[in-house]
Amino acid sequence: MTPVVVHDPTLRDGQHAVRHQLGVAALRGYAEAADAAGVPVVEVGHGNGLGASSMQVGRAAVSDDLMLSTVREALRRSKMGVFMLPGWGTSSDLRKAIAHGADVIRIGVHCTETSLAERHLGWLAEQGAEGHCVLMMSHMASAAELASHAAAAVGYGARAVGLMDSAGFFLPQDVTSRIGAIVAAVDVPVIFHGHNNLGMAVANSVAAAQAGARIIDGCARGFGAGAGNTQLEVLVPVLERTGFSTGIDLYGLLDAADFAERELMPAPPTTGTLSIVSGLAGVFSGFKHQVLDASTRAGVDPRDVFFELGRRQAIAGQEDLIVDVVAELGRTAV
Amino acid sequence: MTPVVVHDPTLRDGQHAVRHQLGVAALRGYAEAADAAGVPVVEVGHGNGLGASSMQVGRAAVSDDLMLSTVREALRRSKMGVFMLPGWGTSSDLRKAIAHGADVIRIGVHCTETSLAERHLGWLAEQGAEGHCVLMMSHMASAAELASHAAAAVGYGARAVGLMDSAGFFLPQDVTSRIGAIVAAVDVPVIFHGHNNLGMAVANSVAAAQAGARIIDGCARGFGAGAGNTQLEVLVPVLERTGFSTGIDLYGLLDAADFAERELMPAPPTTGTLSIVSGLAGVFSGFKHQVLDASTRAGVDPRDVFFELGRRQAIAGQEDLIVDVVAELGRTAV
Repeated sequence: MTPVVVHDPTLRDGQHAVRHQLGVAALRGYAEAADAAGVPVVEVGHGNGLGASSMQVGRAAVSDDLMLSTVREALRRSKMGVFMLPGWGTSSDLRKAIAHGADVIRIGVHCTETSLAERHLGWLAEQGAEGHCVLMMSHMASAAELASHAAAAVGYGARAVGLMDSAGFFLPQDVTSRIGAIVAAVDVPVIFHGHNNLGMAVANSVAAAQAGARIIDGCARGFGAGAGNTQLEVLVPVLERTGFSTGIDLYGLLDAADFAERELMPAPPTTGTLSIVSGLAGVFSGFKHQVLDASTRAGVDPRDVFFELGRRQAIAGQEDLIVDVVAELGRTAV
Repeated sequence: MTPVVVHDPTLRDGQHAVRHQLGVAALRGYAEAADAAGVPVVEVGHGNGLGASSMQVGRAAVSDDLMLSTVREALRRSKMGVFMLPGWGTSSDLRKAIAHGADVIRIGVHCTETSLAERHLGWLAEQGAEGHCVLMMSHMASAAELASHAAAAVGYGARAVGLMDSAGFFLPQDVTSRIGAIVAAVDVPVIFHGHNNLGMAVANSVAAAQAGARIIDGCARGFGAGAGNTQLEVLVPVLERTGFSTGIDLYGLLDAADFAERELMPAPPTTGTLSIVSGLAGVFSGFKHQVLDASTRAGVDPRDVFFELGRRQAIAGQEDLIVDVVAELGRTAV
């Protein structure tokens, strides 16, 4: 059995599904349950990471300070993880996280913009902290480009590096080639983080492990925006059956999932038709509400808008493109 | 692109999720939407097939006659499919289905009991009807056994034969070997029907197609008991991206899925922890309510009961085993 470290961002990425409104009791209860099951890393925070709570993307119900101290207190065996997007969070947020006892600090960047993480990864390395780097929207770059960016991140000081399939676009063969290229290019553990838009989150995660990834993400009950993340309590026994050891107790993990279903979410994610379209189009599913609003006003099919955004390689932060695409499709329709 | 026939049992297998209570308007509306999308086969009936509506497994809201005439009227391009379990249904039910214009008649048997289908498949062949045979709970037999039973079914007159992963136990490599063995053993199209207990329904279906299966099942929104069936509107575009042509219009299919979510089900299926356990244990998930009831009364963990039922190779119809296992586990616990 090859060991794999399962990294659990239920209390961070899952927050997107509830507009970052998880309360202290929910954070504590889930962290205790995951810790009891032996989940290696429990990540916590605003959905967009440290320092991101704001009018623009939504204020979290609980401050970063209180989230970190709550989860730190709840964990006995598990490491505490945090996530940060440079620009949304800053060095002072990293300092704060370390002061609160964060063990694993992930820096997320668009897959071709690793240099944005240079300063933070370097600073974390200087502190002796465990800084990881994840390349987001990773279907938008080739295996060779990803390998080169992953190597750059390691050069900046990352102790692990890998891919987020932010749009839920990948099929297993896509993961195999990309993770394989990164594994060949770096000498640190490689990360994979899947989304379920095409029903492939677990299969993609297994493909990643088989290609050499050694840190795999999963969220309880698939908690996350849209079609959700890789379902943690499915991922773990499937990895075990496929020849990977996680060190996680199955019944404890199922208990944590039951807690999550009961206490964290109004309902577990399912794959709605617009999530499928955004996955097929390779577009960030966070665009959904804006696409729906603009399409409805203009009388165009939101599915056409998603596919056109995909052709234009739209990425998060380029919400203005939605308005342009809707306007153009509206004119064509007339 | 290799052509694959997508077979849609939303209005039959999905019925399990709503205790066979789909009404005429829902049946008609979904059949029209699937037909408009170009879905090749629309299967309809009580969840347990022709003639199964009864006090024991639940009475359907609509009679077989009315289900068949309603769907027949709604279909212009799609074929109409029916399903029958010998013993639950009889020859007179088959005659009735043909009189109503059923184009594809599937006979389901436990994977090692193909001989139970001999008479019905023979009779269908004599009528010139398209009789198919599906081997249920197919994880309980080896690839060689399945191939031998599949060949027997073809000998009886089946014009297509294949596997149901009734417990949702398979991982893609399991499907590859079993479907491959059947493809090598018969000269008729091979069928695969998946369930999503381990999040693998779509990945398993793709593996089946890659191993040579040419009829693949999927239900709109994954409609079905427990963790649900292969999600049809995810399956189709993923098959297309993997090199298989289905002839189905994507937007029409997404519209049918939206109709199904709105009109057929209280909520789309998700993978609860007991569905995962029944999948891992290889036990028919229809046991769930009885296992929960008996376990609660006896104060034993229902997950232990599922795993023990799996070790004893329990199959549908052997519900008495649940009582035995719960009693034994209860004694051990004291």
